[in-house]
Amino acid sequence: MDTKEIALKRHKEWRGKIEVASRVRVTNAEELAVAYTPGVAEPCLEIAKNVDLSYVYTRRHNLVAVITDGSAVLGLGNIGPEAGMPVMEGKCALFKEFADVDAFPLCIRSNDVDEIVQTVSLLAGSFGGINLEDIAAPRCFEIEARLKEICDIPVFHDDQHGTAVCSAAALLNACKFTGRKLEDCRVVFSGAGAAGIAIAKHFMRLGVKDIVMVGRHGAIYQGNPANTEPQEEIAKVTNLDRRHGSLADMLTGADVFVGVSAPNLVTEEMVASMANDPIVFAMANPVPEIMPDLALEAGAAVAATGRSDFPNQINNVLAFPGIFRGALDVHASDINEDMMVAATYAIAGLIAEADVSSTNIIPEAFDPRVVPAVAAAVAQAARDSGVARI
Amino acid sequence: MDTKEIALKRHKEWRGKIEVASRVRVTNAEELAVAYTPGVAEPCLEIAKNVDLSYVYTRRHNLVAVITDGSAVLGLGNIGPEAGMPVMEGKCALFKEFADVDAFPLCIRSNDVDEIVQTVSLLAGSFGGINLEDIAAPRCFEIEARLKEICDIPVFHDDQHGTAVCSAAALLNACKFTGRKLEDCRVVFSGAGAAGIAIAKHFMRLGVKDIVMVGRHGAIYQGNPANTEPQEEIAKVTNLDRRHGSLADMLTGADVFVGVSAPNLVTEEMVASMANDPIVFAMANPVPEIMPDLALEAGAAVAATGRSDFPNQINNVLAFPGIFRGALDVHASDINEDMMVAATYAIAGLIAEADVSSTNIIPEAFDPRVVPAVAAAVAQAARDSGVARI
Repeated sequence: MDTKEIALKRHKEWRGKIEVASRVRVTNAEELAVAYTPGVAEPCLEIAKNVDLSYVYTRRHNLVAVITDGSAVLGLGNIGPEAGMPVMEGKCALFKEFADVDAFPLCIRSNDVDEIVQTVSLLAGSFGGINLEDIAAPRCFEIEARLKEICDIPVFHDDQHGTAVCSAAALLNACKFTGRKLEDCRVVFSGAGAAGIAIAKHFMRLGVKDIVMVGRHGAIYQGNPANTEPQEEIAKVTNLDRRHGSLADMLTGADVFVGVSAPNLVTEEMVASMANDPIVFAMANPVPEIMPDLALEAGAAVAATGRSDFPNQINNVLAFPGIFRGALDVHASDINEDMMVAATYAIAGLIAEADVSSTNIIPEAFDPRVVPAVAAAVAQAARDSGVARI
Repeated sequence: MDTKEIALKRHKEWRGKIEVASRVRVTNAEELAVAYTPGVAEPCLEIAKNVDLSYVYTRRHNLVAVITDGSAVLGLGNIGPEAGMPVMEGKCALFKEFADVDAFPLCIRSNDVDEIVQTVSLLAGSFGGINLEDIAAPRCFEIEARLKEICDIPVFHDDQHGTAVCSAAALLNACKFTGRKLEDCRVVFSGAGAAGIAIAKHFMRLGVKDIVMVGRHGAIYQGNPANTEPQEEIAKVTNLDRRHGSLADMLTGADVFVGVSAPNLVTEEMVASMANDPIVFAMANPVPEIMPDLALEAGAAVAATGRSDFPNQINNVLAFPGIFRGALDVHASDINEDMMVAATYAIAGLIAEADVSSTNIIPEAFDPRVVPAVAAAVAQAARDSGVARI
């Protein structure tokens, strides 16, 4: 059986990848009186007096909602909330397995920004954090921005920021390996959707100055009527020379390629046209923009993908479990830029400078050091930036 | 320590009475590829083709949302969503402990009917059932009615229907014990809120014809401007003689008293004024309308309360776990009247006719026969009434 057949068979056997477990035993009248009526009135009254005690007397301190509208599930498009659920359950299983975070999936039957924002904001009192997942661009930007404004708990869109944190960690070490400074890198993106734009913004936070985004219509420049609103926004701080042209045009002389687009868009010739010792992150899934062995043959000093069957897998599981673990540990009200930067350096820092190599720029997905390191760095950054409640 | 102190201490130790458990292990790249990307795409695509497969490939077949707006939590009033959470978590723990149902608490930050209805209906694709809890009357009626209309999964307001099913089961056996037929009983209610009205309607489904509801302003009769809308509605089928008067007035000569109101509203004299061998269900919590020993001294043939420290405890835990277990087992689209009637007879039927006595009209809360019996009866009624999907 191949992975597809195994996956279908296993999902049928599992009948759900998560379940709700009771943390209390209720086997007699006394236990019932303590866990439920009449005893339960006491924690209720305490929380009514001070809502922060919801982090003490309920599961809120460890609870994240994984929210989708089913509109951009994997590469499958808008398959709807019910069909998106296997991915969301999987995400929740990863949260638990990697970071002991209780995550619960909620798939919303609406693609309307207002309805999604209202639904999530009305539920924010039941959770300690919100993870948005697989919501199509550009509405994912507005949903996230408005929820961050309204909610008093962290709101994090993993497709954007998780990917950004992992890619940036890989970039830090790839630059170390090739002797580059981030501020000197010319970075070209293929893919100017939610992930691409978020990665670009995060790269800039870390010091990258020269970025060109390439979308379906070629290089993105300010004032192009074909730009979406978020593309027009990012065009204000990228491609400052307003260059027009194809991905091949832009890649000539570039130091770094970042692909979050589609299979096989990059040829060996395009890699060969880049600067010396170029860095190639080809993260389209499951088939990358260029296979890493081809990129290396064409002269790349480092190649990374989203795949587990090659070295240098850029996998969000390096970021989101530890980021939420850290945020929850300090009852954070937000996951802000400082916390994402801290997570980035924490992941990159797990590869000792002497160990950085062409095949070792980012820790492996199952490296047990990752979650504790990320969580500690994120919690500290939350405290330092004033969004920690404890 | 008394129960209050113990409850607060325990809740602090528990840090949440439920958690999310992963049903899959994800410890290496192969397991990740099956439970998450790329394997997870397969069940997603299957559900996209046939949404009923969400009951096969995700946890929906066993998952109930426990929903409140925090507006009528226990006897504490409108304490808000966060403060209501300990009760909702407790309810979820009971669902799991009693019937292996995965229940997840969602407390909504709104008391607005439209907002609550929209929030719940947009989440209906993520669950196999909805349990409404501790939502204030009269809006709980409209919320329930509208959600039942919109949603393709069962919607059940336990404060109404769970209480109704259990009270009616007790009534069936109390009538057996006192040699009455339901259709000959004169039943007087103290309390004309959500629970009282739901119990009255359910009693009528089982054959009771003569009911008088008594609220704060005395007997409820059609056309009284003090009536709420649901009271005016129930007044069309109760108190057909349009009697005016106090609870004491109405109780004179009555066969059955049902209290879902407030402590100590019924005196021994009032019980003594009822028909011979009267039935007294004094369910105000924690202090009943009349203590059961006083009611028996005053001539009651049977006394029941909501308390675990007296015989004949009318406890919703006899109903909701088995009702949802049965509904989920057949992927029911509704919990309808037939299913509630079936649950009622199933609970009552667990007391053999020969065993019915003054202190034995309803099974004990922890009787292990209850959930399987109720679930089987409810599943069969779902099939017979055409709301079962399998």
